[in-house]
Amino acid sequence: MRLSRFHLSTSKETPADAEIVSHQLMLRTGMIRKLAAGIYTWSPLGLRVLRKVEAVVREEMNAAGAIEVLMPSIQPQELWEETDRWAKFGGQLLKIRDRKDGAFCYGPTHEEVITDFARNELKSYKQLPLNFYQIQTKFRDEIRPRFGVMRAREFLMKDAYSFHLSEDDLAREYENMKAAYTRIFTRLGLAFRAVQADSGAIGGDASQEFHVLAESGEDALAFSTGSDYAANVETAQAAAPGPRPAAAETLRKVDTPTQKTCEEVAALMGIPLQRTVKSVAVIGEDGFVLALVRGDHSVNEIKLAKVAGLTEYRPAGEAEILEHLGSEPGFLGPLGAKKPIRVVADREVAAMADFVVGANEAGYHLAGVNWGRDLAEPDVVADIRSVLAGDRAADGGEIKLARGIEVGHVFQLGQKYAKAMGATVLDEQGKSQVMHMGCYGIGVSRIVAAAIEQNFDDRGICWPEPMAPWRVAICVINPKNDAAVNQVVEQLYADLQAAGVDVLWDDRGLRPGPMFADMELIGIPHRIVVSERGVQAGTFEYRSRRAEAAEALSREDVWQRLGLG
Amino acid sequence: MRLSRFHLSTSKETPADAEIVSHQLMLRTGMIRKLAAGIYTWSPLGLRVLRKVEAVVREEMNAAGAIEVLMPSIQPQELWEETDRWAKFGGQLLKIRDRKDGAFCYGPTHEEVITDFARNELKSYKQLPLNFYQIQTKFRDEIRPRFGVMRAREFLMKDAYSFHLSEDDLAREYENMKAAYTRIFTRLGLAFRAVQADSGAIGGDASQEFHVLAESGEDALAFSTGSDYAANVETAQAAAPGPRPAAAETLRKVDTPTQKTCEEVAALMGIPLQRTVKSVAVIGEDGFVLALVRGDHSVNEIKLAKVAGLTEYRPAGEAEILEHLGSEPGFLGPLGAKKPIRVVADREVAAMADFVVGANEAGYHLAGVNWGRDLAEPDVVADIRSVLAGDRAADGGEIKLARGIEVGHVFQLGQKYAKAMGATVLDEQGKSQVMHMGCYGIGVSRIVAAAIEQNFDDRGICWPEPMAPWRVAICVINPKNDAAVNQVVEQLYADLQAAGVDVLWDDRGLRPGPMFADMELIGIPHRIVVSERGVQAGTFEYRSRRAEAAEALSREDVWQRLGLG
Repeated sequence: MRLSRFHLSTSKETPADAEIVSHQLMLRTGMIRKLAAGIYTWSPLGLRVLRKVEAVVREEMNAAGAIEVLMPSIQPQELWEETDRWAKFGGQLLKIRDRKDGAFCYGPTHEEVITDFARNELKSYKQLPLNFYQIQTKFRDEIRPRFGVMRAREFLMKDAYSFHLSEDDLAREYENMKAAYTRIFTRLGLAFRAVQADSGAIGGDASQEFHVLAESGEDALAFSTGSDYAANVETAQAAAPGPRPAAAETLRKVDTPTQKTCEEVAALMGIPLQRTVKSVAVIGEDGFVLALVRGDHSVNEIKLAKVAGLTEYRPAGEAEILEHLGSEPGFLGPLGAKKPIRVVADREVAAMADFVVGANEAGYHLAGVNWGRDLAEPDVVADIRSVLAGDRAADGGEIKLARGIEVGHVFQLGQKYAKAMGATVLDEQGKSQVMHMGCYGIGVSRIVAAAIEQNFDDRGICWPEPMAPWRVAICVINPKNDAAVNQVVEQLYADLQAAGVDVLWDDRGLRPGPMFADMELIGIPHRIVVSERGVQAGTFEYRSRRAEAAEALSREDVWQRLGLG
Repeated sequence: MRLSRFHLSTSKETPADAEIVSHQLMLRTGMIRKLAAGIYTWSPLGLRVLRKVEAVVREEMNAAGAIEVLMPSIQPQELWEETDRWAKFGGQLLKIRDRKDGAFCYGPTHEEVITDFARNELKSYKQLPLNFYQIQTKFRDEIRPRFGVMRAREFLMKDAYSFHLSEDDLAREYENMKAAYTRIFTRLGLAFRAVQADSGAIGGDASQEFHVLAESGEDALAFSTGSDYAANVETAQAAAPGPRPAAAETLRKVDTPTQKTCEEVAALMGIPLQRTVKSVAVIGEDGFVLALVRGDHSVNEIKLAKVAGLTEYRPAGEAEILEHLGSEPGFLGPLGAKKPIRVVADREVAAMADFVVGANEAGYHLAGVNWGRDLAEPDVVADIRSVLAGDRAADGGEIKLARGIEVGHVFQLGQKYAKAMGATVLDEQGKSQVMHMGCYGIGVSRIVAAAIEQNFDDRGICWPEPMAPWRVAICVINPKNDAAVNQVVEQLYADLQAAGVDVLWDDRGLRPGPMFADMELIGIPHRIVVSERGVQAGTFEYRSRRAEAAEALSREDVWQRLGLG
């Protein structure tokens, strides 16, 4: 591509409203332009990158045996009623009325549509297994769209849905998709990690997320040094605690006039924070619950919501706390409640002896508290806390934390959707069987932003080669319009094209400074400068985007740097 | 592709609700599945065809120098207010409210969005000309979606928008796009015609439509045998009439007790229908208007709406007719109206003498009517009638009619959008200039249906090769599972793939009848049958989709039929 025939519009200013580096650089390079909150136009430059990602995803999905389809963006309410998600999906579902007052939504995902397709198309086990995918535009009406295409409302997604006669076959395809995802992110040149995940609103049995590792990532991930265990902090578990020690202290009341936090109480008493217990009051389906975690731990909301009766819990209000515990917040504890309460203890707390809790009386805590002796054993013992860096992992290693950007997600949905929508096939015995389903998503447009978060410097983007808008930039310095220089450039451009290299010729006639700045900003991996001096010396000035400096190289050496042998 | 690893689901039944052959065949082949009125899922088979069309369109747009972008489907109301189209676009505009009560629409077209993009990106004439295009999903809330993807609500479109400093440069790009469209439809193997068109709701100065010719086409097209003149009947003109003959008859009243139509009056009087004049009463911006066309002609609504004061006319009601003409419908005419009326005469009517019109009195007509003598000359003389087959064309040839399906449309928009939205650049003198714009659309998904309307027989679709889901089908007849047959098939499949041929191997193990029926239904251009008998004879059974019968051919001859040299 000759740049004079393209449209490039870069800017030196960092946009004020862009908080993260990928958003800033996508605006500065002109890759995207905002049309409305969370809604962007992809410029020619941005689209080149998006299409490269799309192509890799498509090739690997095809290679993995998935079959491409294209489903509509507009979906009828009736289908979503069948799975009960019309009401349950929440505010992200953009609801629409057409001119005949029919109710539709702009699809945020396509489980209902593909299951409807499958129940109409598939009649026999002989047609299975099948994995349908599409690369298609989705809309989620985010309450706070931000970070450019990282959390946009309209976005491009690859979503795949597989259908199986048995759970075992679903598990096989799930592994097949995980392997395909690994190939996709590897081919794209990204540092990534597959981690165990919560399956969230989509529901289902097993799921894993694929994260691009980046400091700016919204998700916290936990790894173990002892194995390849990796999980989203939403679900990550540390090793189970050891057995509970015997009680050694007697129960006593401690004056804590202004000490309302575990940290303050521990400091006042001169004991480790690990000896205190934090009491968190919530309201679940069956009423008031006191959740207990160690003073240095925090309640993991996703884990707590998995405790029976707490599926949709909320924090208790001050009046509810007063009614049940007889105390103001800051001095809460499981002993001496006004009304009978349900106690859910983290398994670490259940293994503690001689601990400190609030006395349910303003200005006091209790110390030397022991289960069984001073209060009944907890109603529920469960892992309800988030892991911390340095925790011991179940495999004996140490827990480390990192941050990631979720770019892929694989789920074993099981029969949830197929059962709700009556998607059945006849098995070998002619018996009707509900199909098992998997679903597999990749945020195609988000990958573009995630890749930048992982690959940039102070001069701009440093694209991994497979995602770069062009692999090679030819920059010409020829103020005298020297014919020999022009000839070398034309030949170089033609030779690279003939070698199948995606090459950009910056023929805009800019001075070297702004020209180089643009090529670095937009992140072209290889730059070749053709100048009068170089032509006379028979060399090209070559520079890799990540290199410290340029080198004068022969044509052969340039070819070799480009991997052209 | 091995068919056992694909998903094909054909049907013998013709769907009851599909009125036209392309809709029937797209459902029978399983190319599309209906999700809601005018909203379809593209199955793996259908998507293969759609992507082939898309690829040809993209290649030719790129070759013509257009640059691909991707604009959002969801567009904010504010932009549409700038061009006054939020209200004016009508019911096809699907309006949406997001969770924050912001007003948006699902883009039916992208003039506003691209003009907003251009006014932000383009500052100088040096950046021009530019032609941005996208291949993107649009939604038009058709009041009566029908004919499958032919008139769907959600559909795939290629839309391009060009920007220019001058009208001349716009005209140059307009010709460039016409040439690109001609290459696109030629490459796709379609019989098509470019015709002059009305520019309709998009507005603007010059426009042409590209039609795939098919008997089932919704549009009537007029051609001249005298030149390459071609136009949509909406705008097609016949030659202007000769001079008006002198009056020869006297005005007289004729008894026409029950004769209300020109045909009935002409029959009663024993005169040619061409001697009568039809009076059509309408209400325009300035009130009551009587439009006159010759008895054998019909009023062309689009032409009539171009007469000053009739931009948004409607038929007059009986009460309005009685009030102005003093008569019931069936006996209307321009003489003796009760109130002063405006008369708009077709230019053919203005050139008539001694004609017959209604008398504005139930049961009577007037004969021997002459302009200037019996009534004033018409207030307006204009071409307001539709052409008929056999009319003399302006070039001296004869008008012929055909039917077409509109698949492309090119417009010179001029400054309409750029002016409304303030899209300017600085010219060489540093003066701000409103840009000139062109827009160029292709109905990508509609092309698939249009191609079928033009290419089918009683066995199914006969794809033009460039659009076929696969070029070649290999069918295997091997009930004994003969190893030699299997080896020949494997080799043939591998050789064709190595030759770059898009080949489908029907390895489902069906009997020949259903297998051949499927391959014919889905329209694969070349079929190669491998059977035990053929393998023994060293031949393949080859059949072109359009051929009467199969032939036993050597490998070399098959290769030659496939154009593989």
